[in-house]
Amino acid sequence: MNKIITIGREFGSGGRELGRKLSEILKFAYYDREIISEISKRTSLSEKYIQNIAEHKPVIPFPIHTGRTFWAVVPDFGQSVQSEQHNIIREVSEKSDCVIVGRGADYILKELNPFRIFVYSDDDSKIKRCRENQSHDYEKGSELSEKELAKRISQINKSRADYYEFYTGLKWGDKANYDLCVNTTKINPEKFAEIIAEIFLSKC
Amino acid sequence: MNKIITIGREFGSGGRELGRKLSEILKFAYYDREIISEISKRTSLSEKYIQNIAEHKPVIPFPIHTGRTFWAVVPDFGQSVQSEQHNIIREVSEKSDCVIVGRGADYILKELNPFRIFVYSDDDSKIKRCRENQSHDYEKGSELSEKELAKRISQINKSRADYYEFYTGLKWGDKANYDLCVNTTKINPEKFAEIIAEIFLSKC
Repeated sequence: MNKIITIGREFGSGGRELGRKLSEILKFAYYDREIISEISKRTSLSEKYIQNIAEHKPVIPFPIHTGRTFWAVVPDFGQSVQSEQHNIIREVSEKSDCVIVGRGADYILKELNPFRIFVYSDDDSKIKRCRENQSHDYEKGSELSEKELAKRISQINKSRADYYEFYTGLKWGDKANYDLCVNTTKINPEKFAEIIAEIFLSKC
Repeated sequence: MNKIITIGREFGSGGRELGRKLSEILKFAYYDREIISEISKRTSLSEKYIQNIAEHKPVIPFPIHTGRTFWAVVPDFGQSVQSEQHNIIREVSEKSDCVIVGRGADYILKELNPFRIFVYSDDDSKIKRCRENQSHDYEKGSELSEKELAKRISQINKSRADYYEFYTGLKWGDKANYDLCVNTTKINPEKFAEIIAEIFLSKC
């Protein structure tokens, strides 16, 4: 059976950096935005649109008696994106050893016993990392004030929590759902990746 | 400045084993029950009595107008035990590099920037570990039914949570208060100790 590492992560905590470094050391396949690109190919929807759907819980339309709203149509796209995401995550887990970042992969693959990591950090650390990483596609951190950036980070994390809870019924970031929770406030993500790699290099 | 590692741990999760192994690998001083023994020497109270006080939040007496109850006297002992525990933890942290298990040391020593680990595991794993560790001084696991043992473990952990919250104002086991949270359900505590030791051997 392939070795699977899943990484849940607070936005701004360096989970992606940790995951990528870990995959490089272990020579495992790495999946993060690659999943979005693949969904885009399969559904002909834009990556940006998919990114938005794939990390948000669906908008449930109210049954308005005067007719169906525009939003009533959206969950159909949402469902097909979710379904493709689910399929792709299962497919890549069957292909080779891999690191999968985000997207509830820990839950989707739970029968395959993945090693589940959650990456987090304190708020100041998240703001600092976002400022340093100005090319990030979510946010041009440098254009936002400290307060605006903190609010944006908090919104993204709230959205991730809602998404995870909606699709899994579990609390996002609850340590009971992970094998290792890593605080990147004091020790950088790449350093943690080297340490965590030892678990796989020496044991599995 | 000395390197300090503090270990919070759910009862039954192997936190003590992890801490001891970590101290052996790193050649750090190790403090756990040693602190109780030292308080006993300084206060002339029995170790068993101190163990009970030192890990429970105090019983606050109601102001009964007919007179002071027996319990009204107990917090005085409790206070001196807490105070000695606090002093000893600070003293040992100044002596040498060390691993300190439990007793809110992460909070007491927070200005010294300790590396804060929390060790936990799922309920079945805790029961299994308690059964295997029959000589543990809290509990002769083998004499209890599965249900009784689960209840006892839960009570001890509730008591640890209450104690920590009472003295720190923080939530026990909340990952935000730790640098690393380690789930010993799938990977044994000694193995985790070897991995964690790498952080100190290679960086600090």
